[in-house]
Amino acid sequence: MPDPAALSAVIETLRPLLGDRLTTSAAVREQHGRDESYHDPMPPDAVAFVQSTEEVAAIVKACAAHRVPVVPFGTGTSLEGHVAALQGGICLDVSRMNEIVAVRPEDMDCTVQAGVTRKQLNEYLRDTGLFFPIDPGADASIGGMAATRASGTNAVRYGTMREAVLALTVVTADGRIVRTARRARKSAAGYDLTRLFIGSEGTLGVITEVTLRLHGIPECILSAVCPFPSLKAAVDTVIETIQSGVPIARIEVLDPNQMRAVNAYSGTDYAVAPTLFLEFHGTEAFAREQVETVEALATGHGAKGFEWADTLEERNRLWTARHNAYYAGLALKPGAKAFSSDVCVPISRLAECLAATEADCAASPVTTTIVGHVGDGNFHVLFIVDPDNPGEMEAAKTLNDRIVRRALEMEGTCTGEHGVGYGKMAFLEAEHGPDALNLMRAVKQALDPDGIMNPGKIVRV
Amino acid sequence: MPDPAALSAVIETLRPLLGDRLTTSAAVREQHGRDESYHDPMPPDAVAFVQSTEEVAAIVKACAAHRVPVVPFGTGTSLEGHVAALQGGICLDVSRMNEIVAVRPEDMDCTVQAGVTRKQLNEYLRDTGLFFPIDPGADASIGGMAATRASGTNAVRYGTMREAVLALTVVTADGRIVRTARRARKSAAGYDLTRLFIGSEGTLGVITEVTLRLHGIPECILSAVCPFPSLKAAVDTVIETIQSGVPIARIEVLDPNQMRAVNAYSGTDYAVAPTLFLEFHGTEAFAREQVETVEALATGHGAKGFEWADTLEERNRLWTARHNAYYAGLALKPGAKAFSSDVCVPISRLAECLAATEADCAASPVTTTIVGHVGDGNFHVLFIVDPDNPGEMEAAKTLNDRIVRRALEMEGTCTGEHGVGYGKMAFLEAEHGPDALNLMRAVKQALDPDGIMNPGKIVRV
Repeated sequence: MPDPAALSAVIETLRPLLGDRLTTSAAVREQHGRDESYHDPMPPDAVAFVQSTEEVAAIVKACAAHRVPVVPFGTGTSLEGHVAALQGGICLDVSRMNEIVAVRPEDMDCTVQAGVTRKQLNEYLRDTGLFFPIDPGADASIGGMAATRASGTNAVRYGTMREAVLALTVVTADGRIVRTARRARKSAAGYDLTRLFIGSEGTLGVITEVTLRLHGIPECILSAVCPFPSLKAAVDTVIETIQSGVPIARIEVLDPNQMRAVNAYSGTDYAVAPTLFLEFHGTEAFAREQVETVEALATGHGAKGFEWADTLEERNRLWTARHNAYYAGLALKPGAKAFSSDVCVPISRLAECLAATEADCAASPVTTTIVGHVGDGNFHVLFIVDPDNPGEMEAAKTLNDRIVRRALEMEGTCTGEHGVGYGKMAFLEAEHGPDALNLMRAVKQALDPDGIMNPGKIVRV
Repeated sequence: MPDPAALSAVIETLRPLLGDRLTTSAAVREQHGRDESYHDPMPPDAVAFVQSTEEVAAIVKACAAHRVPVVPFGTGTSLEGHVAALQGGICLDVSRMNEIVAVRPEDMDCTVQAGVTRKQLNEYLRDTGLFFPIDPGADASIGGMAATRASGTNAVRYGTMREAVLALTVVTADGRIVRTARRARKSAAGYDLTRLFIGSEGTLGVITEVTLRLHGIPECILSAVCPFPSLKAAVDTVIETIQSGVPIARIEVLDPNQMRAVNAYSGTDYAVAPTLFLEFHGTEAFAREQVETVEALATGHGAKGFEWADTLEERNRLWTARHNAYYAGLALKPGAKAFSSDVCVPISRLAECLAATEADCAASPVTTTIVGHVGDGNFHVLFIVDPDNPGEMEAAKTLNDRIVRRALEMEGTCTGEHGVGYGKMAFLEAEHGPDALNLMRAVKQALDPDGIMNPGKIVRV
């Protein structure tokens, strides 16, 4: 925790700049120390509602001068305790930095402030014929999504934040404002600072602006739901789809528990069966051609055919139901908390990995659902738990451990998209080994020598 | 230059390990200190023909112990002096590390040693139905391509080395062997070490193995050449193609000078006019649909229609002619050297940028050609110069400067794909500014505190 005198000095320095946008109210602090996960929250000492990159720079400078931690906060929808102020300090809430700075349809890119959310951006873009495809379940902030290297249902076709971001404006640990790259589509001009900050979770600097690639809204979008006789049949269809090279836009698996939860939460009446949610993008002819290929593969695995979402409303309903899978899972047990595994394996190992996971879940006393971006090899087991029941928590953690270890043995990763926060630091070491972790540590120490940037996350220094 | 005693100590340490694969022969050293550019070469003190990652680690350890520089060398086809041993030291020639370690068709990926070249890999892959799309003009090594963040003609559709690499094996500056990532298609597990080493040009470590994404060979490939009444007409066609969202696989512009050079060098008889080289990938129906769209755009800009390469042989001939553009340019003036600009701008600025560049070239006494990956906004002006003619060199450098400054003013980059080496360090500062450069410097110092990894490139420490 910061020295109280240091903290007072920072607050005194910032008060004239921020006025009542700097608060030490207990309720606001509480709210900013927790995310949507089961991880223990930890309130910051104060919360600053920033409005500009320059303000962020001024705050970080003040914090650096007094060695007070800085924790960036977007929408608080992270899942690994990313926003918990483990060592106290100032929370930088960027939600008021929600200006769409520029949209350049002719370059199919845009620049937004860090607090703009993905839904806000897409609503803004609606009349341009362009869209921003990265879509985690939550309506997260673009800054937070960049910071955690987020993805979502469209990643199989459009990539993750790693591919979506062209450039960042970042405030470094000593309060300088740096732009990581120009707007050119590609560049070989030195170290890839953009990618270094993407996924750095606020531990190397604060992302304040993001320049994003956009995509043309396809001429034709076809969405469907398809139940399967088994999870294996669904997953084998996914694997063959990917291996056949069909540029499918979305291909998501949900297990029967998840479908039951979705129906209850979203008022849908889908079959309670292992199910794929699919979407095809293209010209009319090309989208239909893709459908034909994938429908044949699905039929080959015993599916009875696609149930189409024919109108825009039906399509939105379908994907809203999918995006709310986490909240639907949570609602299975009122008062429960959820935590989520997030493994991602090479596609060739996906069927085996999911089958073993399914068996593990069936054998566990914990309530679970399975849902995933299986086109990427990424899936989540949602553990619906009562955090006050130590036996249940223990069983869930044991199961989660088992799932992660298996994924690592299959050359997979412990986190496809949720990030490390402070919840996955042990897995990070298991995944990368001590020498790679030492490289990360060296980078952290080089860019944040006093350890004030979101301390206690990703790597311990 | 390293202390002679230190150098002797390193050579003495390595001799038992490498035998006659460690050489101090003047001819071999000369050959390893130069690339394909006009930049002054600088021979290393010795060349080690390494055969394994472990050997590289042993060599780097020995060099680290005695603070002797290490310069990695693939095929020597870099264009900014990347391999010049500016401070002497040991050149690590990886050309004998040319094993294709694993191809995994079911995951559409492969792992290769750093010395495998792009042509070698694609020949090896031929029977798998897969291909590796990144194709700089030279038959470069995959390790070198990763180190310079290379791209080529397919980047508009398939991305650059930034997107192509899933994971690297790297020997760090203290001789440790690190794997930067697993094989999962996406991951949010900590800092992006993979992308940190891509484009680092041997200054942070030595890349010894590369795991690459592969792509299915499309069912249908259609290649064509199309002359235009003006460079502007050609470029406007490109811009409209990109903005229309057609996923064109290749779209390359060549100016009349370049076409003349190509015809002379490759024995082709293309019209000497501003020309696009195009390629369409997809299913039969979808490829034809793309052709229809782009042909209409081209016609709208006064093109007389596409000249198709109907057979595999004709297609190969077309793209070989394109890939040899640099050598064709060089051959315009026997005994000349070439150097090449490599700017990349947002597509909306491309027409203006190229028009101004074309006028500059016409007004200059220097022999130039223009060729480019214009779908990405990336193009090269090739300066065909006599390095012993100071006036000509001066004129070429002035022209190059002007082209780079203009691209930077248009939010572009000084290098789309060739990298920085020691030829573009001044431009790097102009592009990123001192604070971003300081971040790069901090990373360099953190990962290579003694400054032994390819010193004098990218950033001065």
